[in-house]
This record gives sequence, structure tokens and C-alpha cells, in this order.
Amino acid sequence: MQAEIDVLTIGNAIVDVIAKVDDAFVQNNGLVKGSMNLIDEARAEALYASMGPAIEISGGSAGNTAAGVASFGGKAAYFGKVKADQLGGIYAHDMRAQGVRFESKAATDGPATARSFILVTPEGERTMNTYLGACVHLTVADVDEKIVSAAKVTYMEGYLWDKPEAKEAFKLAAKIARKAGRLTSITLSDSFCVERHRESFLELIRKDIDIVFANETEIKSLYLTQNFDGALQALRKDCEVAVVTRSALGSVVAHGEDVIVAPAIAVPHVVDVTGAGDLYAAGFLFGYTQGFGNARSAQLGSLAAAEVISHVGARPEVNLRDHAKEAGLL
Amino acid sequence: MQAEIDVLTIGNAIVDVIAKVDDAFVQNNGLVKGSMNLIDEARAEALYASMGPAIEISGGSAGNTAAGVASFGGKAAYFGKVKADQLGGIYAHDMRAQGVRFESKAATDGPATARSFILVTPEGERTMNTYLGACVHLTVADVDEKIVSAAKVTYMEGYLWDKPEAKEAFKLAAKIARKAGRLTSITLSDSFCVERHRESFLELIRKDIDIVFANETEIKSLYLTQNFDGALQALRKDCEVAVVTRSALGSVVAHGEDVIVAPAIAVPHVVDVTGAGDLYAAGFLFGYTQGFGNARSAQLGSLAAAEVISHVGARPEVNLRDHAKEAGLL
Repeated sequence: MQAEIDVLTIGNAIVDVIAKVDDAFVQNNGLVKGSMNLIDEARAEALYASMGPAIEISGGSAGNTAAGVASFGGKAAYFGKVKADQLGGIYAHDMRAQGVRFESKAATDGPATARSFILVTPEGERTMNTYLGACVHLTVADVDEKIVSAAKVTYMEGYLWDKPEAKEAFKLAAKIARKAGRLTSITLSDSFCVERHRESFLELIRKDIDIVFANETEIKSLYLTQNFDGALQALRKDCEVAVVTRSALGSVVAHGEDVIVAPAIAVPHVVDVTGAGDLYAAGFLFGYTQGFGNARSAQLGSLAAAEVISHVGARPEVNLRDHAKEAGLL
Repeated sequence: MQAEIDVLTIGNAIVDVIAKVDDAFVQNNGLVKGSMNLIDEARAEALYASMGPAIEISGGSAGNTAAGVASFGGKAAYFGKVKADQLGGIYAHDMRAQGVRFESKAATDGPATARSFILVTPEGERTMNTYLGACVHLTVADVDEKIVSAAKVTYMEGYLWDKPEAKEAFKLAAKIARKAGRLTSITLSDSFCVERHRESFLELIRKDIDIVFANETEIKSLYLTQNFDGALQALRKDCEVAVVTRSALGSVVAHGEDVIVAPAIAVPHVVDVTGAGDLYAAGFLFGYTQGFGNARSAQLGSLAAAEVISHVGARPEVNLRDHAKEAGLL
């Protein structure tokens, strides 16, 4: 059966609440700059009350990736759970308006749509404080077998493993994709996420995942080493395609015997790094599912990452297809 | 009694839903570029469904002005009506987080918090489509006599006259301010707003308003003339202080016998003109209430307007007090 969808992504559906802060605010709130913290409702309320004015933009790691794939002109779908509240409506609108197929049913009770309070310090670094809210309701019931079977790649965020039911949904989707002869992919999401789930991530990757996305810190954490090359070689043995991003150093794609290194694209002024990894994955997966090969796919990833860090918010502000054409990549 | 508040503003409390669009989208939706359209709920839903992904930022003309005054370090207060829903919570947070005193009670029933769908075309022009929602609930009951009496200036947006009850609230606030020996101020808001309320605006200005803010098009509409100088001379006779903005031509302040002309501040790249007039008023009123005189107050207005049109959204992104210090105005 021909695939109707290029990339299906599954993740926590989160609205980003973004405020610029100074370093003192991060410190005074006991936060580590650049970290992603899971917070409960009381902490969410307290933090919001102490934050300055903010802007709201749809986000969520895998959601950003789906939006990126669609912006490149790829056929994208998304599974994620919002509540049937105003922020949930905004999330669904933004996804569909970007051309992403998004049919996950909104929860009608329980906690509100998830929010991540993203504090952006002057150099563009982001410190995330995520209240998962309605994401807890993402379960195996949301895994639409028809859609998974119709997608060339099913891509899932490691963050899903923080909730047991979402983890089961993730595993089920991987199983269905494999059975349908499709590809599976994961992003390790965050080095502390890797720390929380190291053993089960390794088991999953070895058994059920074709394409792994990670950054340098995450693969070092996965294999408990400070040696980048050691970690990369270990990952190469554990999966078919290892895609590792290294910020300004660009990215490395190891696919069987082949290893390619793609440079990062310089950005005159980094405004907000949120979404850099998500959009890199979008560019790579779009290229990969079009059969462009690893080098060009990695270049598309770098292009999309460079665009998203040059402005506030983790979704592309320009049409990435046009942008890639201008850059001579399409 | 000494004033505890520099500037109280009263207006429609609106969350801006901002999307970049091309000229064709504006045309295909039967809209006139640069216009402000009042829309009903059905039209709001249809327009939102056809729009691309958006970002949400608190807005509302007089709300933007209050935020600007507070960002300059002035003591600001705001009356405006949201519903007790998620967008209403965001609106209240953004206002208070900016340091604005905002105690208007949220409506617990009736329509949702107001939204303005703002379509920004490539040159930075904005076409606004406003669903007033909960703003209909702003009534005389929301006019807190103590706060009005404690404010050096009570500033109100002409848009309030589109709803009969809000208009009554406006009139009551002006009456209380006058009785307390305070100043009253209005912005004419929009030339079509002037068209809808020309006679009653004129009557109000002549009887109850000290400081009038308007742009060139609005005063021409008010006095039914195409001659700018003719309109300006007419306005000078009708109020104590006439403050007229002329986009790139800067602004004119006519105060009794004195007329000063302040240049606009050039912006390298205009991103989104939403809020330019609101922030000009913020800078002027902050300066005026500090006793800085018309010329310096107008320069503060130009500074704030230049900041807000250099990015998406109608609230300042930088601390305007620091910004004014850097420019040597404080």
C-alpha cells in the first residue's frame, strides 16, 4: 500500500507561554538555565503569577515537527491531546491551519490544555517549565491504526515516556508501524528525559526504532560517557539511522556504513532557541521521506532550525518550501 | 488630594490573534487593507477557520496605552471587561504583570473574552477584525469612582462608543474626572469610528474632554474636510490640547497658543503597525503627567511608537523607561 502520509508525529500537545526574562529571574525561581522542568498546577500558577507579560504560541516538540514538515509541503499528521478549552481550540486551529492532519479528540474533562512557560534570557536560551495538563489523557485509544499504517515514518518524542499511558500509546504506534512495514523514529527530547528513561529507551531503540534523533548531550547521557565519538559509535550499532545535532557545529548522520557531516547555518542574531531540534527533525524527515538522501535531508534540517531560532516561538514563520527553494535545496 | 495614578485608561479588553497573510487573503475575504472591522461570532469563527497559524498577545487600544505608561514607569490603571475564561485570564495576567492596576471584575456568563483577528500583510500594515464578545458587559458599574478621582488623566478610546452601555460608562468616567478636577482624554480610534459617532464625539470633546488624540485621517473625518490645517485649527478651538499623529511625518501638539511639531523616529524595518497610536499616546501621557511639557512628551510618544512597530504585537517588548533613558529623554 502506498503511504498517504509522509510523517506522523506523536507528542505532548502544549501551548507555549513565552516571556523574556533576565538571568536574575531564572535564578530567583530556582531554575537551571536551559533546562526543561515538569511542573504541577500549583507551581504553574505561582510561576505564571510572577512572570511578566507573555505571548501564546502553539508548541509541543513533535507538534512543532509536524508543523515544519507541512510547511515544507510534506504530508504530515499529528496525535496529541488537548482539552476542549480555549487553548485547546487554538492548538487545534494552528495545527490544521498549517495543513497538518490532526484528529485527536479533545478531552472534555480533567485538567486544562498543557502549557509550557518558556523563559527566554537575553542570549536566546530558553528555560522551559511544562505543566502537562490534558496530555495525561493521551492513551492507546488515540492511536489510529489506519493513520499509523499510512505514514512513511512515525516519529515520537521521548517526553511521552513521562506519563505511563502515553508511553503505552507510543509503544503501540511503533508496533503498528513496524507491522505495516513503515519506519519508526524517536527524538530523545532532553538529557534529563534520557536520564529518567535510559534503560527503556535503549531497549526500545534496539528493538523498535529505525531513526533516532538526539543532540550531543543526550547521546552522551544515553551511553553514560563524556566521549562524543564513543557515544555516536554505540548509537550507530543500535539503530539504522542515527541523526545527531551539535548546535553551531552542525549535525552528523550515520546510516549504516555512511557518515555525513552537515554544517549548521549561521544566524545573525539568535532570538530564541526553542524548537531548533524539532525543526531540524522536520527538515530531515521531510527530505528523507522524499528520498533526498542523508546529506540533503540534513541540510534541510539545518535550514529549518536556523529559521526557527531567528524569532520568538517554535513554529516556522515563513513557508519553509519557498525558503528551501531560495536556498537551492528544492 | 494628590493623584495616586498618573493615567487611567478605559477600553475594550481584547486579545489579539495575529497572523501573517498575503494581500490575496485580505482581498479574498472582502476586507479593506488597514481597516478595523467589527464582526459577529459567526464571522469570527469563519475567519479564524480560514486563517493560518497565529500567535496570541494581549491587546486592546487603551489596554496597550496603559501597558505603555507602566513600561515607562508611570502609575497606570485600566478598566476593561474580559470573561472568566482562559483568554480572560491571560489578559488580566499580562496587564498586572506589566504593573498596571486592573481590577475590573471578569464576566461569568455571556460571550467569551474579545478577540481581534489581526492580519498583517508583508509591508507591516494590519487589517483588524474584532469580535467584541465580553466587552459588551462593560457598564457604569465598572467605573470605580475612587480610581477615576485618583488619576491625573482618564483616557478613553472612541471604540467604546460602539456599545451603548460602554458609552455610558465612558461618559460617567468623564463626569467623575471633571468633578474631581482631573483631566480627561480621548482617542478618536479610527476614521470609521469617527464616521459612526461624529456628532456625539464633537459634542463630547467640546464639553468634557481636555486632551484629544487623533491621526490625520480621523480629524479630517471629524470636521468633514480634506484640509489638514483646517481640521487642526478647528480641533484647537474645541479642546485644550490637540495631539495629532501623522505616521512618518511625526506629530503635532497644539496647546493653547503653542504649537509644536515632533519628528517621527525612523524604524529600519516596520514589522507590524498595530499599536503605533496607542503607544504614542502612552509616551505622551506619561511625559505630560510627569510635567515634562509638550515637546518632550511628544518625543516620548514617538519613541514608544517606533518601538512597537518594529515587532509583532501591540505591547512594548522592551522596558520603555530604560529605552527612553538610552535615548536621553529621561
